[in-house]
Amino acid sequence: MAGNTLGRLFAVTTFGESHGPAIGCVIDGCPPGMALDVGDIQPDLDRRRPGTSRHVTQRQEADAVEILSGVFEGVTTGTPIALLIRNQDARSKDYGNLADTFRPGHADYSYFQKYGLRDHRGGGRSSARLTAPLVAAGAVARKWLAERHGVRIRGYLSQLGDIAVPFGRWEDVHQNPFFAADIDRVPELEAYMDALRREGDSIGARIEVEASGVPVGLGAPLYDRLDADIAHAMMAINAVRGVEIGAGFGAVTQKGSVHGDELTPAGFVGNEAGGVLGGISTGQDIRVSLAIKPTSSIRIERRSIDRQGHPQHVQTLGRHDPCVGIRATPIAEAMLALVLIEHCLLHRAQCVDVDSGLAPIAAQAPAGAV
Amino acid sequence: MAGNTLGRLFAVTTFGESHGPAIGCVIDGCPPGMALDVGDIQPDLDRRRPGTSRHVTQRQEADAVEILSGVFEGVTTGTPIALLIRNQDARSKDYGNLADTFRPGHADYSYFQKYGLRDHRGGGRSSARLTAPLVAAGAVARKWLAERHGVRIRGYLSQLGDIAVPFGRWEDVHQNPFFAADIDRVPELEAYMDALRREGDSIGARIEVEASGVPVGLGAPLYDRLDADIAHAMMAINAVRGVEIGAGFGAVTQKGSVHGDELTPAGFVGNEAGGVLGGISTGQDIRVSLAIKPTSSIRIERRSIDRQGHPQHVQTLGRHDPCVGIRATPIAEAMLALVLIEHCLLHRAQCVDVDSGLAPIAAQAPAGAV
Amino acid sequence: MAGNTLGRLFAVTTFGESHGPAIGCVIDGCPPGMALDVGDIQPDLDRRRPGTSRHVTQRQEADAVEILSGVFEGVTTGTPIALLIRNQDARSKDYGNLADTFRPGHADYSYFQKYGLRDHRGGGRSSARLTAPLVAAGAVARKWLAERHGVRIRGYLSQLGDIAVPFGRWEDVHQNPFFAADIDRVPELEAYMDALRREGDSIGARIEVEASGVPVGLGAPLYDRLDADIAHAMMAINAVRGVEIGAGFGAVTQKGSVHGDELTPAGFVGNEAGGVLGGISTGQDIRVSLAIKPTSSIRIERRSIDRQGHPQHVQTLGRHDPCVGIRATPIAEAMLALVLIEHCLLHRAQCVDVDSGLAPIAAQAPAGAV
Amino acid sequence: MAGNTLGRLFAVTTFGESHGPAIGCVIDGCPPGMALDVGDIQPDLDRRRPGTSRHVTQRQEADAVEILSGVFEGVTTGTPIALLIRNQDARSKDYGNLADTFRPGHADYSYFQKYGLRDHRGGGRSSARLTAPLVAAGAVARKWLAERHGVRIRGYLSQLGDIAVPFGRWEDVHQNPFFAADIDRVPELEAYMDALRREGDSIGARIEVEASGVPVGLGAPLYDRLDADIAHAMMAINAVRGVEIGAGFGAVTQKGSVHGDELTPAGFVGNEAGGVLGGISTGQDIRVSLAIKPTSSIRIERRSIDRQGHPQHVQTLGRHDPCVGIRATPIAEAMLALVLIEHCLLHRAQCVDVDSGLAPIAAQAPAGAV
Repeated sequence: MAGNTLGRLFAVTTFGESHGPAIGCVIDGCPPGMALDVGDIQPDLDRRRPGTSRHVTQRQEADAVEILSGVFEGVTTGTPIALLIRNQDARSKDYGNLADTFRPGHADYSYFQKYGLRDHRGGGRSSARLTAPLVAAGAVARKWLAERHGVRIRGYLSQLGDIAVPFGRWEDVHQNPFFAADIDRVPELEAYMDALRREGDSIGARIEVEASGVPVGLGAPLYDRLDADIAHAMMAINAVRGVEIGAGFGAVTQKGSVHGDELTPAGFVGNEAGGVLGGISTGQDIRVSLAIKPTSSIRIERRSIDRQGHPQHVQTLGRHDPCVGIRATPIAEAMLALVLIEHCLLHRAQCVDVDSGLAPIAAQAPAGAV
Repeated sequence: MAGNTLGRLFAVTTFGESHGPAIGCVIDGCPPGMALDVGDIQPDLDRRRPGTSRHVTQRQEADAVEILSGVFEGVTTGTPIALLIRNQDARSKDYGNLADTFRPGHADYSYFQKYGLRDHRGGGRSSARLTAPLVAAGAVARKWLAERHGVRIRGYLSQLGDIAVPFGRWEDVHQNPFFAADIDRVPELEAYMDALRREGDSIGARIEVEASGVPVGLGAPLYDRLDADIAHAMMAINAVRGVEIGAGFGAVTQKGSVHGDELTPAGFVGNEAGGVLGGISTGQDIRVSLAIKPTSSIRIERRSIDRQGHPQHVQTLGRHDPCVGIRATPIAEAMLALVLIEHCLLHRAQCVDVDSGLAPIAAQAPAGAV
Repeated sequence: MAGNTLGRLFAVTTFGESHGPAIGCVIDGCPPGMALDVGDIQPDLDRRRPGTSRHVTQRQEADAVEILSGVFEGVTTGTPIALLIRNQDARSKDYGNLADTFRPGHADYSYFQKYGLRDHRGGGRSSARLTAPLVAAGAVARKWLAERHGVRIRGYLSQLGDIAVPFGRWEDVHQNPFFAADIDRVPELEAYMDALRREGDSIGARIEVEASGVPVGLGAPLYDRLDADIAHAMMAINAVRGVEIGAGFGAVTQKGSVHGDELTPAGFVGNEAGGVLGGISTGQDIRVSLAIKPTSSIRIERRSIDRQGHPQHVQTLGRHDPCVGIRATPIAEAMLALVLIEHCLLHRAQCVDVDSGLAPIAAQAPAGAV
Repeated sequence: MAGNTLGRLFAVTTFGESHGPAIGCVIDGCPPGMALDVGDIQPDLDRRRPGTSRHVTQRQEADAVEILSGVFEGVTTGTPIALLIRNQDARSKDYGNLADTFRPGHADYSYFQKYGLRDHRGGGRSSARLTAPLVAAGAVARKWLAERHGVRIRGYLSQLGDIAVPFGRWEDVHQNPFFAADIDRVPELEAYMDALRREGDSIGARIEVEASGVPVGLGAPLYDRLDADIAHAMMAINAVRGVEIGAGFGAVTQKGSVHGDELTPAGFVGNEAGGVLGGISTGQDIRVSLAIKPTSSIRIERRSIDRQGHPQHVQTLGRHDPCVGIRATPIAEAMLALVLIEHCLLHRAQCVDVDSGLAPIAAQAPAGAV
């Protein structure tokens, strides 16, 4: 309610600022009895971690997570799981010139007006660094979803500025710092980013995320719909400006005879729905697409005002991602996991006794990938 | 939590089904002391009402609203406002053939699997008819936002299938059943819809909504962000498949030096942000765009299965909108109003004492419309 | 959040005022598939109904309930159940003299200060009449609890002013208007109330409620504990001023060797815990006791002030219960049912897979009653 | 929702177990702009801290708190405040014999049945040690309430087993380890506790808490009533079995002409209401009374069962408070602070514009103390 909790049955409350002593989260509602240790969480954090290639921020953070509670003898107890990550490489002096000036396109101005003050160091609470605790919580959710229901969540970068990168192979995603699903396109992406860094500018991106093996029946219409909650979670990721489910904006020009996925005893024919009908999962793959805006912290000088309302020019010299979209894939995956586990638990509450008598029909993904 | 409440401080809980005795809502949290009567609510309901042109469903519903509580001597008391709308023109027999079969692209299948049963009459709870109580609640919210903060919310249909309808003039919107902002394009839209009805098919659409006069500072990051809650509310409208804030998917190909709206003492230069930075309103116009899928209930025969999993062919013969997008504009406006009032109240709770010392700078909308 | 919803997974939102057109509620979260009709709800409403003996208010209300939604072909659908009760015998003129003056001990003053206005007719929203929708919702909860888990909830009046009425027999409770569990004491109670009415005064009472057959494991510590939620719900009943679980205030003088209920393979030895340990149900009977204050609306003249702060004398001439405790038993039962169903659903969400391997041990209630 | 968050606008989520690496909390919703450092929190923690007299557990914990986030340059920022307390003196081996057996009167059995496992070390999550983070959060709430509204919250132990300790003087409370308000009674209390320790038994207690300077108008009826939320919070304290507001169970034998506090232009005459009418604060002092059960962990041997359901005898040898009531006063104060700040924020959301035109009348506490 106060803004920093995502979910209600699997409720993740995060805390921390970019340059404070620590960041972290409390996960309340993780079911008891699941094996859990740091090794289940750290790999996802490492995928999101800064400083791993020249195309992302050079801030060096190990993002080593400590489990403070909720696990006893290697197993979740059903009580809150607190996760702590100490900040290590905070260089607040980089931001001295920003204490009094608002970066165009940045949360500086809105935070200052809302709260009457702000932690200007590295964006404070609004920093993309705060996605780390969500990725950690998402790793817990993913483990439960995989073990309990066989759900698999994965994503990739499908566009970087003007460069579309169509889906090639899932194996490629983990072999390049862009999370591109076609390794052959990586040199082109690298050249693009190198040129961009020289300009001191930044660029937007597009991310695709999908979940397979999702149980049928998740979602609580009319307003805690699965698709609405996905849209909420995705738009809550820093820099996201657009969300699509299934056909998305493509549905604007579709006819009903094309958009409505037919059903056969062998399964759905197509997946324009993106796995959600009437706000409830169908058992098809969940398909989500995100638009990520360019980083607002750039080296190019721009017009702005200061805390007195006077005109200023501002350049951002701290360490930043020239394309926040590059590291966004694991974050989007985590968000999808958090929404899905929330709805699995909610569905158990309301419908655990339900048996429709009809076996879920198979999801027939379209030929090609997502 | 159980799914049918939108908002927490201005909490709207709806009830009812397409063909049950009544639909309605309870609004909990409306501030006391505001003049309110049926005349404040009915006009918005009339804008959404079915049967008003040949391009929408021919079901005849007066949608006359009764205020059951929460208003005393013409003024809100701060206690729950219950609104009741009796269903009048329910023709359930039209749906007899659907009791056992699932319409492609419809919530039939997912509801049945979730709940083990479903009210098949006109879509039951999943019917677009259930947007009426939200429009009624939205009218209450709009009145408060206008009186207390001078907020104005309006929208229009910007695309119908392949026909883009660029913004012309706001006055035109109320003079045609499509909510198009250019009256000169209406004949083309009418011809398109007439052809579509003859085919027995349906089509998608795109809607733009904006709010002006929005106070700076609304939104509770990190997860009850204003943009995330807007995305949630919009995706909770029947048939919405995509949501954009500001530049939306256009941000994918933008550079930071283009996307980040510069600030001058005279105001923001541009509004790529769509009025939200870091999840908090900037005082600029809020700009939202929606993709609406084609209606799934069409006369064209399609493949499906029945409750035993056997293959069937299905046609939908009931009265339906061939383009649900046509009546979606007032619904999207209501949703935006509901999110904004929620965040106004939340902001008062947390920050009523805040004074940043900096006057909000003017929002300079780009030349052109939204 | 806005105050008029009880529960989150089985969420009951009520609306209405004592002298408005109608009262009612929306139940969101009732599991699908339960047979339900008016006949399941009306009997509980009839037990609470006014005008049934000379010892309670003489207002004549049939309290006939209409189910507006959420039930299809006699079975709950999992969607919101709206219940409507029209007010019939509202005599607002009785309250004309109270429009400007605050009754001592009544919500008049606090409502006026909070909201800046109030509906003075019969207490408006603060009237005990508003317990009717809760009793209706409680009837739905009780049915589910009984059918699904074999839970039985019942209560009785154990004290009326200075007259203690020890438990005799459950059968007696339904045979007298006081809900006393000893029919032989009823003449004494009647004489007491007759004298009180002649004085124009009112009196307090004490109520016991218990639930048997409660599953072990309900309650979400640390703060959504079962006992804490029971205390919340009971204190939310009009006029309740104290709540005890199990030994209650008796525990102040108990030693640990007396209070802690021993366990044997045959069951618990005693039930000082009242069925809850560490906030979680033990499977023993839940035992709750309530203190109910005397009605504040009395005929005896008392000192007060008016809306201008001037001294006044006030008498209440409307129809009132001289002891609100007399009709409180079915209300307290409904509240306990609402808390228990909420926690049954929550427990399913979090722990549906749990098997401790230990069969729940039998609850051995102490000889005697509760 | 998942159980470990108290409050929604000032939401405190706690984590940790008695013998895990750390305990702590995240406070979400603290208004921005308040000066805050460790020195504002540590004194309250020190009052609750174990090991400070021979009458409480001898576990040695500094309970030194670290602020991890939400404070920048000594001022709250409006973002989550995370507080961390490392456990230091955990002697888990004391509990080895309890791993398989359930202590009578303890949460052992109910936790095991709910979760299928439990952290038996020192009670795990159910330990009274977990009140420390609430006391820390309460200190933040108290500071805001005092600075913003002049609210003062204080309490005392009014009964220890059979020894009633009537209110004497507030100054005395801080001069003895019992929080007794009459220093002359302390030797009697000490002798009583010494004898009890020799027996190896434990005892119950009664605590009074009050708040003065409370603004009129707090509370959101019908169900988020101030008194209901107080009852909830108090019953959520370990070992509390009964809660009273104002006259409490004394109201059972009161007549309306006695219970209803008269109003005069000079103020309320008496405070039987305990500062709450119709669930809304009146501006009078809030008066709450608590019953605390005897500790369940005692040295006296008792009958129990083990995880296989076999009969066992159990003695608890770890370090425990023989009367948890002794340290309960600062905990109850913290709980009252947390409820009051929650309702201050909620009231701002809903009623910040309200002006009834009537100045709050003075609260005339009865001669004597609370």
